Amino acid sequence: MPQEDKIVVHWLNFSRAQRIIWLLDELNLSYELKIYERTKEYRAPKELDEVHPLGKSPVVEITKPDGEVIQLVESGWIVQYLLENYDVDGKFKQANAQDSNQVNYFLHYTEGTLQPLLVGLLVNQMATKVPPFPANWIAGAVVKGINAKYYGPELEKNLKYLNGIAAAQHAKGSKYMVGNKLSGADIILSFPIVSIFTTGRSVHPTVIQEFPELYKYYQNLSQEKGLKDVDEKVAKHERSPLKL
Amino acid sequence: MPQEDKIVVHWLNFSRAQRIIWLLDELNLSYELKIYERTKEYRAPKELDEVHPLGKSPVVEITKPDGEVIQLVESGWIVQYLLENYDVDGKFKQANAQDSNQVNYFLHYTEGTLQPLLVGLLVNQMATKVPPFPANWIAGAVVKGINAKYYGPELEKNLKYLNGIAAAQHAKGSKYMVGNKLSGADIILSFPIVSIFTTGRSVHPTVIQEFPELYKYYQNLSQEKGLKDVDEKVAKHERSPLKL
Repeated sequence: MPQEDKIVVHWLNFSRAQRIIWLLDELNLSYELKIYERTKEYRAPKELDEVHPLGKSPVVEITKPDGEVIQLVESGWIVQYLLENYDVDGKFKQANAQDSNQVNYFLHYTEGTLQPLLVGLLVNQMATKVPPFPANWIAGAVVKGINAKYYGPELEKNLKYLNGIAAAQHAKGSKYMVGNKLSGADIILSFPIVSIFTTGRSVHPTVIQEFPELYKYYQNLSQEKGLKDVDEKVAKHERSPLKL
Repeated sequence: MPQEDKIVVHWLNFSRAQRIIWLLDELNLSYELKIYERTKEYRAPKELDEVHPLGKSPVVEITKPDGEVIQLVESGWIVQYLLENYDVDGKFKQANAQDSNQVNYFLHYTEGTLQPLLVGLLVNQMATKVPPFPANWIAGAVVKGINAKYYGPELEKNLKYLNGIAAAQHAKGSKYMVGNKLSGADIILSFPIVSIFTTGRSVHPTVIQEFPELYKYYQNLSQEKGLKDVDEKVAKHERSPLKL
């Protein structure tokens, strides 16, 4: 049966939106990709405000055959909605209720706990590098203090937590976060996990040594064909306006 | 039928956990309340680390008659789980799929977008008041810069967005965020909305004048019997170790 619903993804470069494209591909759904580029201050451009009042990315717009339009924002909710409505072959169906609950939990955890810590660190990092902030030791020292007192220890706690879950999964012979197949949990976690082991290393220089099971998880994740395909698809738009 | 599942709520004073108690009361569920008090640095105490590795509150523990224990964290997920599993009378059942989706969206939005901005502002506010940060104008100026550049405008955008939704609901004769009855959306939003109009006013002094529809929503929400009952229930434990 040809896909009846028309899907548009509003996508900002260097954003959490990659994950949604990955999931749409895994679900064999067709979609139109609308691309937006960051401003020189690393923010979303004004055009995204016309798509959704919060000017966020990703935004998924689904047009039903009867003309009804459903607009989805919040990555965790988008993943939940797509899995609930479009996994017609049960590719992402979990083996039991516990695993299914665990996937849903990760959809909330990733965006509600892990990602805000990384955003807080990024905002503080930018505070020492981007006008109108002075690139001097005073701003640096205050930001360092805030990071040392709050964001650093909180991130550490989360890395340890995730490392423990990855260890338990590896011990069971699974390279995924829940059960033993790719799930929404891996897809939602991919963005922060990749950023922790690439751009995030300046925040925590010994992340690979201290959290080897999470690093192994990251390595396996980065070899997922679906993720590699998406990376390739969007590579030509991934020009960062800032060296962070 | 007497309630078969045993429910324990691990609750930190001055935290997002009030909402879970409110929902449990609305669902007529019995639960045991375990209370934890904040440290003098306004953080969760170490004992919460023994409940869950992230040391978070709220944590809900459900023990099934067969001994299975389900541990729930992340407020959005806890609300989703409780509504999916314990709304036996359909008290929170929505009128249609659109409203049901909108409630689920708010469970992600509140914790994934709105609350992290308030946490970021709180962390920065503490950075100028709590040791080891210096309570001086340098830290204050840097923090003010970060707030002016990121947290302030983002919060403004969200307040405008929520004010618009409240306005549309009020125009339809509803005092709630979705449909025309109390839902998980109101319960999850209650904590940040209350804090915006009480503790948050220093961040945005004209919040009442600029966002009158959201203020009206807040006023109605604060008159909800269930919320007032919870406030009364926990009032004796609500001692803040800090004047913020």
